[in-house]
Amino acid sequence: MTDSASQIFVTTALKSWNVWTGRAAKLFDSLSDEQMQAEIAPGKNRPYYLLGHLVAVDDAMIPQLRLGEPDYTHLRAPFIDSPDKAVTDPIPVAELRQAWKIVHEKLNAHFEQLSPSEWLERHSTVSEEDFAKEPHRNRLAILMSRTGHVSYHIGQLMLLPK
Amino acid sequence: MTDSASQIFVTTALKSWNVWTGRAAKLFDSLSDEQMQAEIAPGKNRPYYLLGHLVAVDDAMIPQLRLGEPDYTHLRAPFIDSPDKAVTDPIPVAELRQAWKIVHEKLNAHFEQLSPSEWLERHSTVSEEDFAKEPHRNRLAILMSRTGHVSYHIGQLMLLPK
Repeated sequence: MTDSASQIFVTTALKSWNVWTGRAAKLFDSLSDEQMQAEIAPGKNRPYYLLGHLVAVDDAMIPQLRLGEPDYTHLRAPFIDSPDKAVTDPIPVAELRQAWKIVHEKLNAHFEQLSPSEWLERHSTVSEEDFAKEPHRNRLAILMSRTGHVSYHIGQLMLLPK
Repeated sequence: MTDSASQIFVTTALKSWNVWTGRAAKLFDSLSDEQMQAEIAPGKNRPYYLLGHLVAVDDAMIPQLRLGEPDYTHLRAPFIDSPDKAVTDPIPVAELRQAWKIVHEKLNAHFEQLSPSEWLERHSTVSEEDFAKEPHRNRLAILMSRTGHVSYHIGQLMLLPK
C-alpha cells in the first residue's frame, strides 16, 4: 500500500463527508426562518432544532478528534440533552445558521491538514490501552459516524411538507 | 503507510456499514407486518416500501462493485423507479424480509474477500479513463455512499409513531 493509496482512502471518506454536509447546508439555506419552525411531521422535530443539534454534535468533533477546544458547548444542553421544544429556543435562527458555517469551516480546515496516518490515530473517547487492541477506533471512525449522523437527519428533513 | 494501516482504513469503513445496516435490520425486525404498512408520517413512505427500496438499492451494489450479477432487478421498478403506493405491492413482506437477509449476507461475504487495494479499484459506473483522473471513484466510495443512504432512511423510520 503506497502513500498515495492511503491518501485516496482519506479523500474518499472526506468526499462523503462533504457531500452530506453540503446537502445539509443547501437544505437549511433553502428553508425560510418560518419554515425552520415547522415540524417535519406532526409532533416531530423542527428544522431549527435539527440545525442546532447538528451544530452541537459536529462542534463536539473538535475535541473528539483531539483538534482543540469546541466553541458551542452551551448548545449541547438545549440541542443534545433536551428534546425539541423542551426548553425555550436558546439562540436566534440567524445565529444558528452562522454557527453551522463557523463549525464546518473550522472542521474542514483541520481535515485538510491531517495526514492519512493522523486520521488513523485514536479519537479522544477511547483509551490508549483499548485503542491498542481496537485500532479502528480512530479519527476516521468519528468522521464516518458523524457523516452517517448528518445523512440520518437529512432523511428526516426531506419529509418536510413542500 | 503499511499494509496493516490500509486494512484499518477498510475495517473502519466496513464497521460503519455494519453499524447502519445492523440498525436497519433490527428496526425492520422490530416492526410487525401491520406496522410495516403504516406511513412513517402522513402521506409519506411505509416501512414496507423503504425495506424494498433498500433491498433494491443494496442489491444493485453487486454489479456497481463489479462483484457479479444482482438478484433483485425486478424490485427496481416498484421500489426505485416508482414512489410508494404508485403500484400494487409487488412482493409479500415476508419475502422482502428474506430478500434483505440474502442481499446483505451476499454483500458481506464479498466484502470479507476484498483486499484494501481491491477496495480502491474503480466502481462500474465510472469509465477507466475518468477513474484515472478521479481515483476516489472507487468501490469504497460506493460502500460509503450506500452506508449514508441506509442511515438517511433509518432517520425516517425512526419517526414512526411508537
